[in-house]
Amino acid sequence: MDTLSEAGLTELPAEGRNLLFTDARTASFFAPTPVTDEELSEIWDLAKWPPTQANTQPLRVLYVRTAEGKERLVKHLAEGNRPKSQSAPVVAVLALDTQFHEHVPQVFPHNPGLKNVFEENPDKRIADGTFSAALQAGYFIIAARAVGLYAGPMTGFDKAGVDAEFFPDGRFKSLAVVNLGHPGENAYRDRLPRLDTATTLQWA
Amino acid sequence: MDTLSEAGLTELPAEGRNLLFTDARTASFFAPTPVTDEELSEIWDLAKWPPTQANTQPLRVLYVRTAEGKERLVKHLAEGNRPKSQSAPVVAVLALDTQFHEHVPQVFPHNPGLKNVFEENPDKRIADGTFSAALQAGYFIIAARAVGLYAGPMTGFDKAGVDAEFFPDGRFKSLAVVNLGHPGENAYRDRLPRLDTATTLQWA
Repeated sequence: MDTLSEAGLTELPAEGRNLLFTDARTASFFAPTPVTDEELSEIWDLAKWPPTQANTQPLRVLYVRTAEGKERLVKHLAEGNRPKSQSAPVVAVLALDTQFHEHVPQVFPHNPGLKNVFEENPDKRIADGTFSAALQAGYFIIAARAVGLYAGPMTGFDKAGVDAEFFPDGRFKSLAVVNLGHPGENAYRDRLPRLDTATTLQWA
Repeated sequence: MDTLSEAGLTELPAEGRNLLFTDARTASFFAPTPVTDEELSEIWDLAKWPPTQANTQPLRVLYVRTAEGKERLVKHLAEGNRPKSQSAPVVAVLALDTQFHEHVPQVFPHNPGLKNVFEENPDKRIADGTFSAALQAGYFIIAARAVGLYAGPMTGFDKAGVDAEFFPDGRFKSLAVVNLGHPGENAYRDRLPRLDTATTLQWA
């Protein structure tokens, strides 16, 4: 497994797999250990690279880490989620840019007409954009772990409230919030079961 | 960055970041190098762990790797995508289990009533399920890279056709197909640009 060549790794050694997947846990409560803006930028410098549909990259990230920002955000969360985000040094709001297609000529230059396809089909635009943004949210969570942080993604919040608070022009629509930091006391409960492969995998 | 302690890595070293994110590429054309069922199982043994909403895990994976299976699949792809999947030793069909909520009592035992919430709200069930399944598709692509494979995700195919072919009872709805293997000649073109952080990141 540890095939480290001059050209780089050809697969991820066990320690990396443990860090990102097998041993990683979703944290609910965080230590006061600070998280720097540099670490948060590092997450995005990784998460921005994996693929999206037609390279559209529709995910937008708002990092909330000041006391004032946290206060504006936490009141829109489900009550049971507020202590979690209050304990986290940073909460990332992950949102869809509903006008992501404006960037198509830049990000997908060999088919700039795709911009008009999305312009003329708002239902397709939101469905396809939400799918790619959710893919990117998956990349974001793994990237946070790669940077050494624990992530606690949550969907229990008043999305319209968060959007009115932080995205008042209506262009960005929040999809999830992700608490970020280092695990505190009782950071997580026992791991929940995963479905078996008889349920999840098929072969043809 | 290389803080390997007895307890494991606390962050991912540069070589691992390069493999999974920074240097990784989406492959369009693949070498004939075989991919084993063991490698495909390994992908899922990683990808099944990161979080989903209420641990619902709605993604289902069909690995198509026989000649007969490939023939049944390729005819439903957009014409421009057929040579890509024909060159790939394996194509994974990623699908949403639209009845994923049946597993809630097993996977989220402290709130089994969530099953009924999803039962009574099919629109919420499909929207929430699709979001979590897309998150898992993101985990799947990174996990494939961790196992040493290149991934080529595509959404250009006849979803109703694929579903009728492989999921005739109507329960699973395909979301994407992912070509898997080792890169062949002209496996990928020049890398497309990523949006700058002035567009993607905000701070509060």
